[in-house]
Amino acid sequence: MKKDLLVIGGGPAGISAARFARAMNPHLEVAQIRTSPLTVIPCAIPYSMGRTVPRDSIVIPDSMVTGVGVDLIVDVVVEVKDKVATLQSGGKVEFDKLILAIGSKPIIPPIPGAELEDVFSIKDRKSMIRVEEALEHANSAVIVGGGFIGLEVGTELRRRGMDVSIVEMLPHCLQTVFDEEFCEAAEFKMRAEDIRICTRSTAIGIEADRGMKRVHLDSGVDLLADVVIFGIGVRANTGLASKMGIELGKFGVKTDKYLETNIEGVYAAGDCRSKINFVTGKETPVKLASIAVWEGVTAASNAVSEHRREFPGVIGSFATKIFDLSLGMAGLNEKMAQGEGIRYAVGTCEVPDKHPATMPETCNLFLKLIFDCSSGALIGAEIKGGDSVGELINFLSFCIGKKMKVDDLVFLQHCSHPLLTPLPSSNPVMLAAKDAMMKM
Amino acid sequence: MKKDLLVIGGGPAGISAARFARAMNPHLEVAQIRTSPLTVIPCAIPYSMGRTVPRDSIVIPDSMVTGVGVDLIVDVVVEVKDKVATLQSGGKVEFDKLILAIGSKPIIPPIPGAELEDVFSIKDRKSMIRVEEALEHANSAVIVGGGFIGLEVGTELRRRGMDVSIVEMLPHCLQTVFDEEFCEAAEFKMRAEDIRICTRSTAIGIEADRGMKRVHLDSGVDLLADVVIFGIGVRANTGLASKMGIELGKFGVKTDKYLETNIEGVYAAGDCRSKINFVTGKETPVKLASIAVWEGVTAASNAVSEHRREFPGVIGSFATKIFDLSLGMAGLNEKMAQGEGIRYAVGTCEVPDKHPATMPETCNLFLKLIFDCSSGALIGAEIKGGDSVGELINFLSFCIGKKMKVDDLVFLQHCSHPLLTPLPSSNPVMLAAKDAMMKM
Repeated sequence: MKKDLLVIGGGPAGISAARFARAMNPHLEVAQIRTSPLTVIPCAIPYSMGRTVPRDSIVIPDSMVTGVGVDLIVDVVVEVKDKVATLQSGGKVEFDKLILAIGSKPIIPPIPGAELEDVFSIKDRKSMIRVEEALEHANSAVIVGGGFIGLEVGTELRRRGMDVSIVEMLPHCLQTVFDEEFCEAAEFKMRAEDIRICTRSTAIGIEADRGMKRVHLDSGVDLLADVVIFGIGVRANTGLASKMGIELGKFGVKTDKYLETNIEGVYAAGDCRSKINFVTGKETPVKLASIAVWEGVTAASNAVSEHRREFPGVIGSFATKIFDLSLGMAGLNEKMAQGEGIRYAVGTCEVPDKHPATMPETCNLFLKLIFDCSSGALIGAEIKGGDSVGELINFLSFCIGKKMKVDDLVFLQHCSHPLLTPLPSSNPVMLAAKDAMMKM
Repeated sequence: MKKDLLVIGGGPAGISAARFARAMNPHLEVAQIRTSPLTVIPCAIPYSMGRTVPRDSIVIPDSMVTGVGVDLIVDVVVEVKDKVATLQSGGKVEFDKLILAIGSKPIIPPIPGAELEDVFSIKDRKSMIRVEEALEHANSAVIVGGGFIGLEVGTELRRRGMDVSIVEMLPHCLQTVFDEEFCEAAEFKMRAEDIRICTRSTAIGIEADRGMKRVHLDSGVDLLADVVIFGIGVRANTGLASKMGIELGKFGVKTDKYLETNIEGVYAAGDCRSKINFVTGKETPVKLASIAVWEGVTAASNAVSEHRREFPGVIGSFATKIFDLSLGMAGLNEKMAQGEGIRYAVGTCEVPDKHPATMPETCNLFLKLIFDCSSGALIGAEIKGGDSVGELINFLSFCIGKKMKVDDLVFLQHCSHPLLTPLPSSNPVMLAAKDAMMKM
C-alpha cells in the first residue's frame, strides 16, 4: 500500500491533518494510523468520569476521517524507515510525506505502589473505562496533581458525592498557569465544596490497606481512599521520532516554523511537538487541543500543497470550570512576565458579570491584564468569573496575538445587556486597560 | 452659581461626562441637572417589570456623581442663553462649557386611545412604576412594537404568567437589526412560550371595553388586554437644542467628530446626538447606552481639557435574550450590506456551544459573518445561541472596529473547554470565516 500522506496518530492534530489534506486535494491518498480502537475528545474525559455526559458521547466518530476518504488503520507503528512504516501486525505502509501526531502520555511518578490495582492514570478511552469501572464501587479518591485535569476530575468526582483529596507539590493548585489570586479562588471554591487540598505535598508511596489505598505524603500525612488517580501532566511521545533520528527540542519533537522536522518530508503536529511561546520566543511545554488542531492543518498544508503556512508562537489560551467558578488565562501571567524580566504594567477590575448585580446567577468577574511597558502591547490576561470567561479569554487571546496596545482597549464599542454582560459603563476590558494605562 | 462645566441630562452620557470631567481635573466646578428625582439603568427596566430584579436595585445611586464632587440639581432647564441656564424653579446656572446629554423619549403613535388609562410608554422610573402598579392587577398585556424593548418586556411579562400579545408593523420582530433567520428564531421562541405575535400589523386605535383595553389592528384583528404598552422606539430629545439655535442632524443634535455642536463650547453626547455609522459613514438612528457612556467621556475630555478626542463612527453592537435564546448583532447585517450596494461575502456556521453536545444546557450557536469583498474586512456579525453570545458579539464588534480581515479570523489561538466553549476544532469564528473565505 502506497500513500501520498501518512498521518501517525489519532488525536486532534492527526484528525485535522488527515481531514485537511483530503479537503485540499480529494485525489490524494491519505492514511491515518492510530493505536486505540476508539478515540475520545480528550478534554471531555473528566465529564464522562463524573457522569455529566454519557461515556459514548465523548467518542470522536471515525467518520470524521473515513467519511472524507481517509484510510483509517488501527495498529501500532513499530518502525519507520526509508518512507515505509512497519506495523505491529506485520503490515507495511509506504508513504511520500509523513506527519507525526503521536501525542503525549501522562507522567507517572516513580514511587512505590504506582503500579497497584486501583491506581490509575488516564490516557485514552481504555484507561478511562478502567477508572470508571473502579469508580462504580468507590466512595473516595486521592488525585495526585492539582493542575487542570486534577481539579476537573476532582470537581466531577465530588459532584458524584465522593470524598476527594487533591495532592499538589507546589504552594498552589493551577500555579503553573495562574497567578496566586486566581489559584486561591480555585482552592477556596474546592474547599467550600469539601474537597481536601494538600498543597506543598508530594506523594512518596502508595500501599494497599484493607481493600483501600494508603497514599503517603512527604509532609507525614497519609490519605486513605478507594482509588488513586494521577493527573500530574503529560510528556510528549517522542520514542518513534527518536528511533527515526529526528531531532528533539526541550518539550518534544523539534520542527521549523513550517512544522517540518530535520528529516525532509516528515512533519510533526500536536502534543508531540515542542512549541515556541508567542511572547518570549522560548520553548514552552504548553499542550492544547485547540493548538493541536491548527498544527495539524498547518502540517498538512505544508506537506501536500504548495501553500506554505508558518505556525506562529503559541499564546496558550486556557479555560476551566470548578463548580460554578470559571477561570481563564492567555499569554503570560504576572509571575511569568516578572521571570522574563519584562517591564510590565498590570491593570485589574472587578465587576458583576450581569446588571444590576441582583440579576439571578450574577457572578463577580475579576480581570487582570498585563501590558509590556516598552511596546504598550497586551501580553497576558487572567480572569475569574462565570461562564462568560470562555469567550472573554478568547477575545483577549486574539488581542495578544494581534499585539493590541493599551490604547486599543480603553475604548471598545461593546454591547451591554442585563442578562449577558456587565453594565454599559463597566466593560471589564476597558476598565482594566484604563487601570493599566495609568501605571504605564 | 457659576460652573466650569454644566451637564444637562442624568442618563449614561450625562453621568459619564460629569464623572470624567471631575476625574480629569478635581478643581473643576461641575454641575449636572436632571429632571427625574431618581435615575435608573435604562436597559434593566424590563427586568424590574418582570420582577426578575427588585425595583430599587436598578436605581443608579446619586453618589456616582455626588461622590466625586459633582453638584447635582434636580430641575427642568427651560432656557439656555448667553452661557446661563434658567431653571423651572427660577434658579439660574452660569457656565463656561455645556454638554447636552438630554437623551431620547419614547415614540407614541398618534392613534385614538393612546392617552387612555392603562396605556403606557416607559421613559423613566416614574413611568416604570406606573406600569408596575398597573401590572399588579393585570392578567394580560398588548405590547405595541416588536423591537428589543417590546420583546424583552413581553418575555418578562410572560414569565410572570401573563397573557402577552406583541404587535409589529414590519414582516418580522427585530427586523431593523437582524436578518430574517434571526428574527424568525426569536419569533419561534416567543410563540413556543405562548406569546401571540401579530406581524405586518399596525395598531390603529385603542378603546376602553368593560375595564379592559381593546386594541384595533389594521388587519381587522382586535386584541383585548388589561394593559397596553408602547415599545416602538425612541426619538432624540432636541427641543432645548432647537431653542438654543443648535443645528440638528437626521437623528438628533448634529456635532463634529469632537462632539461639539455649531455653538462653540456646547457639546452633545448620548441618545440626543445624531450618530454616524462606522461602516457606511452615513447618519444612523442607533442609540445605545454603551455608546452614550463613551460619548460622555469624549465630550467631557474635549470640553474641559487640552486632550482632543475624536469619536469614531458607531458600529452598533446589540445583544438580547428571549427566554433561553440569546441574540447578538454588530455592524451591518446582510440586508443592510445589500442596501448599501456593498459587494460582500457571507460565512456561516452552526455548532453546539459546549462539547460534547450532550453537556447539560448545550445550545446550538449559529454565527453569520459578513465581509466586504473589496477590502476583505469584517463589516458585520449576527449570532443566535446561549449566554456566550454576549461576549462573542463584543469580540466581533472589536474586530469590525479594527478592520480585521478574513485572513485574521481563519486561525485563532482560542481556548476550548467542555463546559464553556465549542470543540477545539469547531471555533465558530474560524469556521464562519473559512466559509466566507471560500466565497471571496
